[in-house]
Amino acid sequence: MLICVVGMPGAGKGEFVRVAREEGVPVVVMGDAVRREARRRGLDVGETARRLREERGMDAVARLVADEVERELRRVGVVVVDGVRNPEEIEYFKSRFGEESVVIVAIHASPDTRFERLRERGREDDPETRREFEERDERELGFGIGEVISRADVMIVNERISLGEFREKCRSVLRSLLRGENPHDLPGGPDNVRVPH
Amino acid sequence: MLICVVGMPGAGKGEFVRVAREEGVPVVVMGDAVRREARRRGLDVGETARRLREERGMDAVARLVADEVERELRRVGVVVVDGVRNPEEIEYFKSRFGEESVVIVAIHASPDTRFERLRERGREDDPETRREFEERDERELGFGIGEVISRADVMIVNERISLGEFREKCRSVLRSLLRGENPHDLPGGPDNVRVPH
Repeated sequence: MLICVVGMPGAGKGEFVRVAREEGVPVVVMGDAVRREARRRGLDVGETARRLREERGMDAVARLVADEVERELRRVGVVVVDGVRNPEEIEYFKSRFGEESVVIVAIHASPDTRFERLRERGREDDPETRREFEERDERELGFGIGEVISRADVMIVNERISLGEFREKCRSVLRSLLRGENPHDLPGGPDNVRVPH
Repeated sequence: MLICVVGMPGAGKGEFVRVAREEGVPVVVMGDAVRREARRRGLDVGETARRLREERGMDAVARLVADEVERELRRVGVVVVDGVRNPEEIEYFKSRFGEESVVIVAIHASPDTRFERLRERGREDDPETRREFEERDERELGFGIGEVISRADVMIVNERISLGEFREKCRSVLRSLLRGENPHDLPGGPDNVRVPH
């Protein structure tokens, strides 16, 4: 089983990945493969990603990590893939590893919540103003991430709950997926929706 | 407050709209406005929508319903808009009614669940095969609905719960929005995620 975790910036993908590692699930980070390729080419990461897609198509980064994914699938039987950005990558994974093997897990939080989180996180590339935030969202959506999120098999809402509660949700979903069970019946967090503004 | 309800086909938008009406919230259906315009022009609905966007831009259908929305906002103070398909329509509503007045409520269910529901519903335009279903999804995503869903202020997951439970979730969200409260604290359904396949 190949679990693709997707979400808009600040939704909580990183935390899902951390929980997966704690649960002993190997994680393949598509961005790491691009960074290695960038070093090899002596180019920056953005330029490398652009060229890869130009040379090999929209699913280029998926192709770049496919052997690593296959190794982990053989070794452990399950892998989390972090960094899917467009539907072509999903299609590639399905055609290579089987339609039924690919599970899309989306993490959702409202724009207001994501903006607050990214501002608090304050990584170098995180937005400081609402405008920068919107631009980053637009960039991600331009790749086609919205089409992947909208067709997710599992949607985890990360809104107005504590980090601990969110981690518990992620853990429940992962364990259920690993057992082939329905996580709906497991103890989950509250039904977290929020009113904006 | 202008509540735009969005979701992929079969996610459960129609049920949200029904609950809104029961709660006394007026509903403006963008498709109805297009159908009226189609009759006026003596064209079919699809062709009319295409021409409208060609003549007046991607937000044409939002412009078409804007006066009706404004009337309801004056009369009741709140309105649900059903049928938003792209980010340009959201931008138009925000520019006309104020950024803070527009709330996006997305309804999500997994593709497997949506396909089952649409097959059971069996409306004339509902897909009978998985292939027809995927094509319909692609068409909706082509308009840009995925970009709206991914930036929703409220995400309601309609997965592996009964119709009654889903209706209760919708009602909770609506009442909280009407009170300006945080629906997160209200009794909701279980944390409904599911394992596909």
